[in-house]
Amino acid sequence: MQILKDRIRKDGKHLGKGVLKVDNFMNHQIDPILMKQIGDEFAKRFKDVNATKILTAETSGIAPALVVAIALELPLVFARKKRPITMGGGEPFRQVAPSPTKGGEVELIVSTEYLGPQDKVLIIDDFLATAKTLQALVQLVKEAGAELVGIGAVIEKSFQGGRDAIGTSGIKIESLAVIESFDGDTIIFEGEKIATT
Amino acid sequence: MQILKDRIRKDGKHLGKGVLKVDNFMNHQIDPILMKQIGDEFAKRFKDVNATKILTAETSGIAPALVVAIALELPLVFARKKRPITMGGGEPFRQVAPSPTKGGEVELIVSTEYLGPQDKVLIIDDFLATAKTLQALVQLVKEAGAELVGIGAVIEKSFQGGRDAIGTSGIKIESLAVIESFDGDTIIFEGEKIATT
Repeated sequence: MQILKDRIRKDGKHLGKGVLKVDNFMNHQIDPILMKQIGDEFAKRFKDVNATKILTAETSGIAPALVVAIALELPLVFARKKRPITMGGGEPFRQVAPSPTKGGEVELIVSTEYLGPQDKVLIIDDFLATAKTLQALVQLVKEAGAELVGIGAVIEKSFQGGRDAIGTSGIKIESLAVIESFDGDTIIFEGEKIATT
Repeated sequence: MQILKDRIRKDGKHLGKGVLKVDNFMNHQIDPILMKQIGDEFAKRFKDVNATKILTAETSGIAPALVVAIALELPLVFARKKRPITMGGGEPFRQVAPSPTKGGEVELIVSTEYLGPQDKVLIIDDFLATAKTLQALVQLVKEAGAELVGIGAVIEKSFQGGRDAIGTSGIKIESLAVIESFDGDTIIFEGEKIATT
């Protein structure tokens, strides 16, 4: 998605150790026009997987997942990190994931009211990096007995190996901008590496 | 907003002590069609306040604030509860608010990169109840030297006095469904109280 890559190049910042700051348009401040385009692009790529529900994790996944949900007119469930007092009923589904940008571990919780064997789930998140959060979301889908039909990430950092780590063979995984490596401040997208012999 | 009130009546649940569960369509699972309508309705009501930025707090504020941001084509800033490692620079703006549905206190943090004296801010959140979160957001606007031009909440529980507690005279405050009281399981919206003499 060229417009996204251009924006990452313009406003993204490599903080070192593979950490990409996109707070200017995605993770703290959101550009609504770009975000809507992201939703439309995912909707186009996943229109044939016949999802019945979108699943993401709070916090940074909510915006991209919501624009996809709006474009596909599908309900969106976001896994909570803390169990709010409004979550009633029996034991919810729970999975644990480490948080690369905040440290520590987070628990992802989904009420059994909103995910079950009848659901065909499209997972959407902001990043596909080490894929720890995505793995936890995949496990939530399995725990619920639902069917996973696709995974979409806005930005993939392919050098962190997340795509293989997800381990869901045969499932369509789409990311809208794939970063192959960082060279200091320079962001190198997939296919851009220039041979310097 | 009649369609919202109908949905609250259908799927909202009074858990007692004034706590309203709307996890089915807003706070855990999101109905994207209704959410988009909420954004369009706020955009209509606030089109004349000349906002330059939308401000909300993670987590539950993000969805309604994003649909408003898309409708008005304005950048959205969401206050973070934890400082992510990507938040660089100097000291961010910080305010503390108690969390009525999760217990304890939460800190709301906004980077000085994304809020400043040049901004005319429209605050959007899911609930106007005791207004503790909204008060913290108002304080963040003041701390940044920005101008507050409006406050919108999807659901107001008027019996909890939040509107007066905000204490921003002259600022337009809009909520799309005003709950005047609960009578057991029955939700009574503003203007609906029937005299039973």
